[in-house]
Amino acid sequence: MQFTAEQISAFLAGEVEGNPQATVWMVAKIEEAAQGELAFLSNPKYEEYLYTTDASIVLVSKSLELKKEVKSTLIRVDDPYQAFASLLNLYQSSKPRKSGVSPQAFIAATAYVEDDVYVGEFAVIGENVRIGEGSQIYPQVYVGDNVVIGENTKIFAGVKIYEDCVIGDNVTIHSGTIVGGDGFGFAPMADGTFKKIPQIGNVVIEDEVEIGANCTIDRATMGSTVIKRGAKLDNLIQIAHNVVIGENTVMAAQCGVAGSTKVGRNVMMGGQVGIVGHIQIADSVKIGSQSGIGHSVEKQGEFMLGSPAMTGFQNHRVQAILKELPELRKTILQSARQLKQMSDKK
Amino acid sequence: MQFTAEQISAFLAGEVEGNPQATVWMVAKIEEAAQGELAFLSNPKYEEYLYTTDASIVLVSKSLELKKEVKSTLIRVDDPYQAFASLLNLYQSSKPRKSGVSPQAFIAATAYVEDDVYVGEFAVIGENVRIGEGSQIYPQVYVGDNVVIGENTKIFAGVKIYEDCVIGDNVTIHSGTIVGGDGFGFAPMADGTFKKIPQIGNVVIEDEVEIGANCTIDRATMGSTVIKRGAKLDNLIQIAHNVVIGENTVMAAQCGVAGSTKVGRNVMMGGQVGIVGHIQIADSVKIGSQSGIGHSVEKQGEFMLGSPAMTGFQNHRVQAILKELPELRKTILQSARQLKQMSDKK
Amino acid sequence: MQFTAEQISAFLAGEVEGNPQATVWMVAKIEEAAQGELAFLSNPKYEEYLYTTDASIVLVSKSLELKKEVKSTLIRVDDPYQAFASLLNLYQSSKPRKSGVSPQAFIAATAYVEDDVYVGEFAVIGENVRIGEGSQIYPQVYVGDNVVIGENTKIFAGVKIYEDCVIGDNVTIHSGTIVGGDGFGFAPMADGTFKKIPQIGNVVIEDEVEIGANCTIDRATMGSTVIKRGAKLDNLIQIAHNVVIGENTVMAAQCGVAGSTKVGRNVMMGGQVGIVGHIQIADSVKIGSQSGIGHSVEKQGEFMLGSPAMTGFQNHRVQAILKELPELRKTILQSARQLKQMSDKK
Repeated sequence: MQFTAEQISAFLAGEVEGNPQATVWMVAKIEEAAQGELAFLSNPKYEEYLYTTDASIVLVSKSLELKKEVKSTLIRVDDPYQAFASLLNLYQSSKPRKSGVSPQAFIAATAYVEDDVYVGEFAVIGENVRIGEGSQIYPQVYVGDNVVIGENTKIFAGVKIYEDCVIGDNVTIHSGTIVGGDGFGFAPMADGTFKKIPQIGNVVIEDEVEIGANCTIDRATMGSTVIKRGAKLDNLIQIAHNVVIGENTVMAAQCGVAGSTKVGRNVMMGGQVGIVGHIQIADSVKIGSQSGIGHSVEKQGEFMLGSPAMTGFQNHRVQAILKELPELRKTILQSARQLKQMSDKK
Repeated sequence: MQFTAEQISAFLAGEVEGNPQATVWMVAKIEEAAQGELAFLSNPKYEEYLYTTDASIVLVSKSLELKKEVKSTLIRVDDPYQAFASLLNLYQSSKPRKSGVSPQAFIAATAYVEDDVYVGEFAVIGENVRIGEGSQIYPQVYVGDNVVIGENTKIFAGVKIYEDCVIGDNVTIHSGTIVGGDGFGFAPMADGTFKKIPQIGNVVIEDEVEIGANCTIDRATMGSTVIKRGAKLDNLIQIAHNVVIGENTVMAAQCGVAGSTKVGRNVMMGGQVGIVGHIQIADSVKIGSQSGIGHSVEKQGEFMLGSPAMTGFQNHRVQAILKELPELRKTILQSARQLKQMSDKK
Repeated sequence: MQFTAEQISAFLAGEVEGNPQATVWMVAKIEEAAQGELAFLSNPKYEEYLYTTDASIVLVSKSLELKKEVKSTLIRVDDPYQAFASLLNLYQSSKPRKSGVSPQAFIAATAYVEDDVYVGEFAVIGENVRIGEGSQIYPQVYVGDNVVIGENTKIFAGVKIYEDCVIGDNVTIHSGTIVGGDGFGFAPMADGTFKKIPQIGNVVIEDEVEIGANCTIDRATMGSTVIKRGAKLDNLIQIAHNVVIGENTVMAAQCGVAGSTKVGRNVMMGGQVGIVGHIQIADSVKIGSQSGIGHSVEKQGEFMLGSPAMTGFQNHRVQAILKELPELRKTILQSARQLKQMSDKK
């Protein structure tokens, strides 16, 4: 597909500056863009590239004042980044959409799949499963018995969903993620062995949630492990049994949350964070990468950092002193020596 | 399924207090239970819920003295938690069990699968594989050539087992786990590249082991990587080549053990622990979450914590002082300043 | 297969000492080897085992001077470890190689697969895919539309490769790894929700790369996430969108690299390392296990350690002082007390 500056500008309600017939077939970053590509300038830090880029079209802010000559055709818009994201979405939605049920999928006789659902090759749809309108089940997905999947939800190749779980509308789950595996519950016996505690709950994933690749979301012992509306999880994340992740909470890759912990809404976690079980994290808390949270965080909006975590402020002070420690140690020992000399003299 | 208090009490050898015809169809936690549900009270911390719960039946201890009136029918037993676990097990075992070999599975001509084994759709059973009585191989599992699987073992959807591995009886492996991938062995060449060292060993998983979802258990370079009888591994755990995990050892999610390390029996690890290669961890050692173990732990029952790990006692002392550091730093600098002033005066 | 000392010695251009008809069928470590097995002695630390081993054949250095009598037949070679690795390779390459396209695989009409490619059961090969000579696609692999795979590449069971990705020659990808899932890109909206930023780039994996099991390599937002020639990744590793991993870089298990970071060539990372986004790691840098890298590392060959990471030298000094902290604290408080007493006296 090719588009002219004129067509794009019309779509974005922008203003063309330069050749309205300039044509692009791809998008790229401004520092890498070649002829035939469209880029955008949002962060002023990158303005220098505007004067050297080979991009055929660049989206810029209406308020930008040019400091040099520009080869590219410009399209001026209110917010170049938002405009660019709109174009990406347009591009994405223009791609052919997978549809139809593969004759090589296995669909149990009691499953109910709406007419316009995609089910790829070698997918397994278990007994009593229901899949809503417009949802896409990619190849090699496993949907266990009694699972309910909402509308316009995308389950990518190889996801495994254990029985009884519930997935909402407009959910995206990436390849390799396991939903509803048993929670890690074992009772210690007197002889040192462990007896399994059956995990008879399920997982509920609400609308608009996106979950990355190779995550593990365990089913509840009883009741439900819940990922609430709009939460976004990156890859390789562990969510233990009976955890609740609040609305619009964002977790970077390789985080782990232990059993029964409740994470509030609009929480943000960096990568590789660990949170112990049976605690609560207040709304809008921010947790730095690799932090270890061992106690409830009760203050909304708090920033936690370190393992074990302190408030970000306290952590930064301590870390700064850690670097000074070799010097401080010398000072400590020198002071003690001086004092000893002084008391020896008396 | 519905059960009356009378039926349940008979099963548990308990004593009914209240309506013996009270009927339940589900179990729940006492703080969440609704009418038609059965709960239990074990931890005295939760006793308040006993007087407010809507649960139709609650299991309580024979020795419990009621402080207020209770709406629910009570069943008095010796150990309410154990009794509850028995009911969960009963419930679990009453669920229909998957059985039979799907015509859509692929089973190599030389594989030997006992009559009462379940093999789900799109599972692959390689050459010379043997699968013992009562085992269940869920859909989309891959069992490589020459693998041996014991009796009553459950391999959930999408597990991949490379050739030559050996899995015992009563083992459970959850979805997405990879057993027998190559160990990470590369010899550095003079030109900066790496040459692969073939990994010709296997993985042996002994009886009664449970492994969570999306773990990776690498095959040995030579010999075997071994997960010993009764060990329990949570999700997303990495076990490198030639590692041995001892009997009844328990590892929480996202732990990693590097090559050739031997972990003793009855060891317990919190989440996200890392253990370097070529060391030994004594029996009954406990390792706190996110700890990094860089040296052998020789003392049985030791508690290790931190990255790098110290004994728990030492770690707690150091962590307490870390929080004091800003104050201590002031004191250090003030003492030094005072001493300087004193020596300047002389 | 059985081989005599004479045959093996001929293959290795070595010299037999002892019975040239000694026969072996397996290899093992010298400390574990039994009759009928071949071992090697490279590290002098293990020399004691040479005099007690039951191995039928042991590879030793030409320069080794025996201190006691040896039961085994010896084969003297220049470099016993290299010789042993050659035998492992020989053994590996003697194993039957999977070949042919399974009639139970799904191959899109527009895909082009060379004649001598292996495609296992229930694999899915999408539209316009091209797979080069000698490559092996194991069962249950998913190869999305437009993916290009080079020659002699091995994709193990259950790997999922999203559309448009490019995989080179002689690449190995182990089971459960996900290549090309969406990068984690969401724009925050005013109401606290997040809007997905389409990820329209791809992943490029160059020649001679090996990737372990259950890794996640995200596609770029635009452009490519790149794993360069000869890089070796262990299991459960997260590579975010637009990351570049340099040539011959080696990463141990459970590392994570956040978005747009460029890692140089010949870098070595221990396990569970985390690297933030948008930074650069110079060539030949070494990063210790569990380190957290929050800033660019500009010096080639630097050794970084800790979370947050310092240079290894600085980290070792600080860690040593941390253990001393309880003693230092006493000294600090005692000095301050002494000074207070002195000033009180005046």
